[in-house]
Amino acid sequence: MDYEKKFSQVAKTAKASIIRELLKVASDPEMISFGGGVPDPETFPREELGEIAAKIVKEEYKITLQYGPTEGDNELKKAYINLLKKHEGIEGVSPENMLVTVGSQEALQLIGLALLDEDSYCAVGKPVYLGAVSAFKQMFPKFLEIPLEDDGMNVDILEEKLNELVNKGEIDKFKFVYVVPTFQNPAGVSMPLEKRKKLINLAHKYDFLIIEDDPYGALRFEGEPIPSIYSLEPERTILLNTFSKILCPGLRIGIIIASTDLLRKFTIIKQGVDLCTPTLTQRLAARYLQAHDRIEQLKPTLELYKSKKDSMLNALEEEFGDMQGVSWTRPEGGLFIWLTFPEWVDTMEMFEEAKKNKVLYVPGEAFYVNEVEKNHMRLSFCLPSHEEIKEGIRRLRKVAESYVKMKSLSS
Amino acid sequence: MDYEKKFSQVAKTAKASIIRELLKVASDPEMISFGGGVPDPETFPREELGEIAAKIVKEEYKITLQYGPTEGDNELKKAYINLLKKHEGIEGVSPENMLVTVGSQEALQLIGLALLDEDSYCAVGKPVYLGAVSAFKQMFPKFLEIPLEDDGMNVDILEEKLNELVNKGEIDKFKFVYVVPTFQNPAGVSMPLEKRKKLINLAHKYDFLIIEDDPYGALRFEGEPIPSIYSLEPERTILLNTFSKILCPGLRIGIIIASTDLLRKFTIIKQGVDLCTPTLTQRLAARYLQAHDRIEQLKPTLELYKSKKDSMLNALEEEFGDMQGVSWTRPEGGLFIWLTFPEWVDTMEMFEEAKKNKVLYVPGEAFYVNEVEKNHMRLSFCLPSHEEIKEGIRRLRKVAESYVKMKSLSS
Repeated sequence: MDYEKKFSQVAKTAKASIIRELLKVASDPEMISFGGGVPDPETFPREELGEIAAKIVKEEYKITLQYGPTEGDNELKKAYINLLKKHEGIEGVSPENMLVTVGSQEALQLIGLALLDEDSYCAVGKPVYLGAVSAFKQMFPKFLEIPLEDDGMNVDILEEKLNELVNKGEIDKFKFVYVVPTFQNPAGVSMPLEKRKKLINLAHKYDFLIIEDDPYGALRFEGEPIPSIYSLEPERTILLNTFSKILCPGLRIGIIIASTDLLRKFTIIKQGVDLCTPTLTQRLAARYLQAHDRIEQLKPTLELYKSKKDSMLNALEEEFGDMQGVSWTRPEGGLFIWLTFPEWVDTMEMFEEAKKNKVLYVPGEAFYVNEVEKNHMRLSFCLPSHEEIKEGIRRLRKVAESYVKMKSLSS
Repeated sequence: MDYEKKFSQVAKTAKASIIRELLKVASDPEMISFGGGVPDPETFPREELGEIAAKIVKEEYKITLQYGPTEGDNELKKAYINLLKKHEGIEGVSPENMLVTVGSQEALQLIGLALLDEDSYCAVGKPVYLGAVSAFKQMFPKFLEIPLEDDGMNVDILEEKLNELVNKGEIDKFKFVYVVPTFQNPAGVSMPLEKRKKLINLAHKYDFLIIEDDPYGALRFEGEPIPSIYSLEPERTILLNTFSKILCPGLRIGIIIASTDLLRKFTIIKQGVDLCTPTLTQRLAARYLQAHDRIEQLKPTLELYKSKKDSMLNALEEEFGDMQGVSWTRPEGGLFIWLTFPEWVDTMEMFEEAKKNKVLYVPGEAFYVNEVEKNHMRLSFCLPSHEEIKEGIRRLRKVAESYVKMKSLSS
């Protein structure tokens, strides 16, 4: 049978994640990978989680093995509200403001379903976390791509583009700005308080929502915390959190925090998406958070990440400090450094050479919607050891040199 | 902020599940509920699952607490392939034909996303499982509603409707027929082999896919098993299975079985939906299936369900046998009996009286897309005790009598 004829527009335009495809070679033991944004499994509290898992399956089976409410587990919500209060300074959140999702990815899909039509607009960073785009794209909206700077999205250019929509009479079709304001994926940069306030002012002026995706906020290892956009403007902000980076990704638990009117809509749509998030994994996270101060526990992990980040910055300075037109970001947290080459460099083209030299990164073009830039790469520092970081960046320098040579020979 | 202006078409048209809303009163301890299609938690193997959960979290943490492949856990797929071979007589399925989803509901959503556009057609039963419709509806297709008979969907009417599409020149926009051929939800009826073959012939003749949703197939307590549509026609059939009814719903594990070309597409789309199904719950189900013959274990549960079904049929005969124009289905498995009243009866209107008399059912109108029939109700027999079934049907007779009296007084 010719299935092609039966496929929808979504199916015809869906593309496999470049990252997943590229990183399939990462299993080679000699490969040093700066690719995935995957936390170190040795940081997962496996003993405690194992004990709790047995207990809640045996004793709370009427909850953990049964269907649950679409809204999510109230025990988990209450535990998370405490965490938000204590560590993020976010007050006034009630369980009715929260929906538990299958990771943040489902949250992104629900947002797309609830807010976007084919004639809608939304704004995203350039570069942007591609998981968000692949969720939003299912509704075929138009994307405004707003350049990212060392202090986050360029809000002046955002305003220019919004004004263009005003002039075209289409501003009422503009739904939201999507940002990862703290330790952005892929660039690692953060938006300072003043810029957050500017963004909020724009949200009022042009009447839009802000999607604040915050998977890395708790992974700060230096510098001062910046208030979340949600805490400054709860009415217009939809805050997305995840347990993937602070506890472990396997549970697939994300949390949407937003006004009750939005939440009710997301909940009704989620009924048609998967009825409910698994009850077992939710209760497991709930009982764990009730017994442990996870943010306190994370401190040694953050120390480790910080030292690895420093190792990578040092190695970059050493290997690329003398190479003209090469620059990189200096994140205060999160998992990623964004390395920029001169504009004529194509890091996807360079990727073959990197594989040969047993070092992996994610080519920057994976993080653009339409207006692709090819001269960047994302480097993750959380998994490789200090020695591997040093050696990997050395290999990368070699790769860059070979690439430069190849390009000058062919031109 | 006025959120209404920001909502998409999906959000504006999404409706809360009537079932979930109605059954909120079920927590009253005096209430006898024939409402939910929820399995008895005492049938969940909690001790074994608890032991396995602890072991796989502690020892297989690099898998169970980490991100997993979008395709699903290979251990689970292999265990399930064995189950399919042994108990369903389905051969030739490989892991590449399988995708593990967050319950069947996610499978239904992926099917909608992958196959339906706004100008597409699909056919569903009248009545139909509403979870399927709420997933498909997100893409705004046109529904052909095909009457359900005591032996499943009326395939002659299906063919008539397909011919109408041929005449309108729109048959190429017809994508699939959605059926629950064994112990249908809500009606409990099954489609015999001959009719399955007829449906397959139509699929060839009019070039469409068949979505075979089979949550209840393993819950047969009498009569001869009927080969699944997938086993007869794997190329054109997408088979949906779930662990919710045979193991427990809390794990939220569904499985799509289809040709590799379809599977690849579903997998790419799932990347944008939730990246992957939780790894912990998948491995838990896998290790359980490897150690236990779950279908063998289910036998006492099926004995229990059968006797409860018989209790309900006896009670219906006793209470409603003399009531003109009342009939009901006689399922050989599954969870539901479908009770039909004369056409002037409205079971939603009757619902208030039922609540007063402390008995609950699901009004039939919950199971129709556009052409609603109001004179049916769905009765689930798996959770209440024998005594409650007897007493509940007695109350229902009282409710029907009061309703008839009220209607004749008001007319």
